[in-house]
Amino acid sequence: MTDLFSKTLNKEVPIPYYYQLKEILLDYIKNHHEGRDRPIPTEVEISAHFNISRPTVRQAINELVVEGYLIRQKGKGTFVTKPKISQAFLQVLDSFNNEMIKKGLEPSTKILGLEVVECDEKTGEALGIPMGSRTIQLRRLRFANGEPIVYVVTYLPYDRCHPILDKNLEYESLYEILRQVCGLSLLKAVRNLEAVLANEYEAKILEIDKGAPIQYIKSVTYLADESPIEYSLAKYRGDRSQFTFELGIR
Amino acid sequence: MTDLFSKTLNKEVPIPYYYQLKEILLDYIKNHHEGRDRPIPTEVEISAHFNISRPTVRQAINELVVEGYLIRQKGKGTFVTKPKISQAFLQVLDSFNNEMIKKGLEPSTKILGLEVVECDEKTGEALGIPMGSRTIQLRRLRFANGEPIVYVVTYLPYDRCHPILDKNLEYESLYEILRQVCGLSLLKAVRNLEAVLANEYEAKILEIDKGAPIQYIKSVTYLADESPIEYSLAKYRGDRSQFTFELGIR
Repeated sequence: MTDLFSKTLNKEVPIPYYYQLKEILLDYIKNHHEGRDRPIPTEVEISAHFNISRPTVRQAINELVVEGYLIRQKGKGTFVTKPKISQAFLQVLDSFNNEMIKKGLEPSTKILGLEVVECDEKTGEALGIPMGSRTIQLRRLRFANGEPIVYVVTYLPYDRCHPILDKNLEYESLYEILRQVCGLSLLKAVRNLEAVLANEYEAKILEIDKGAPIQYIKSVTYLADESPIEYSLAKYRGDRSQFTFELGIR
Repeated sequence: MTDLFSKTLNKEVPIPYYYQLKEILLDYIKNHHEGRDRPIPTEVEISAHFNISRPTVRQAINELVVEGYLIRQKGKGTFVTKPKISQAFLQVLDSFNNEMIKKGLEPSTKILGLEVVECDEKTGEALGIPMGSRTIQLRRLRFANGEPIVYVVTYLPYDRCHPILDKNLEYESLYEILRQVCGLSLLKAVRNLEAVLANEYEAKILEIDKGAPIQYIKSVTYLADESPIEYSLAKYRGDRSQFTFELGIR
């Protein structure tokens, strides 16, 4: 049938069956490239082939679901997940679009909102302006190959950034506009990372389950004169995102 | 009663009540330092004071629970969560102990396992050694002020690192041993971050719920000659950890 069933469990060693099965499945997942659109064999099939109980099979599959290798789809079966998109967002200050293009993925952006608001305390603090100051709030959903990857809410001080209000942010890069149109020189960013769960709204727009893992990254971007110019709150789908970077010893 | 009830909602503005209440609660949470052991007022009390419906109160509280500011405890009430421990783990290659001490927290470590194993394919790849090579596997649970924060599984090549097998890793720093005893010079680390959910085992040892958010950080540490010397898989409690770092423009 498939190469999964060319393997057997070793019943002589003190390694739990579920764990042995998990290793076999992992190996299968890694090499199971051609079949991503078809489900993996069912619990019944696996339990029959390896001659182990269904709860044992379920435990192995459950752990692979929790670890993000497999995904269950109601009424359809269990599928191998797509690999996460590895991003250099933590290493270089690059636009989402450039990053996706470098990965060979087609980026797109949906503008969910662009308006002038009075900033709350937290935003004011991040941007170094008084609470209630006029602030541009930009809400974007960003896609790779048509799949939603990250929901970003960005705040910018109105006074220095208002030219962006006339721009088409679905097609133009925010950083490019800040540089070219607003004449600003970006120097550095401070990022804050947390692992959180998706709330109902985020789940809906990111097309994931409520309670799914989210990589939450808050950033403040600074100008050459050290004044903050951008405060952004990005919620990345945990099942589709990983971030890699290098760190030298100091 | 409490300063929460010195506030009122503004029923003249087009801002939803739940959102106004959320802002009031956030303010209360920030200044509510003395009362972390007592629950916040109940939904009934809040709905009565502000003269709004219970579903409205529940919506505000739900969002603050999802955002990590509040936590519901069955039969006890709703409490303000402890602030997350902000770590520089992504910025500097420092030991967990040093980091906690800098935060004014008392670190401790429980060794869950220290053994010599044959490495699997993934670990061998990370450490640049053949699959099946002798490898030291160290499993540690690390605490701040007695509370579990991170579960770390570390793999080290046996040949270069075996002196650690004789050391008391509850009290001695792994990096110090690698430097002082094994004579190794650490150069850099490559870290990979993902947001995932806690499985049953992780939930149990980290004292969180199954399905709670976990910041999963895989690292490979390299020597001055660029050979990998340490592969570690760290699962940080999402509710207690945040990571902050600065990024220059290139």
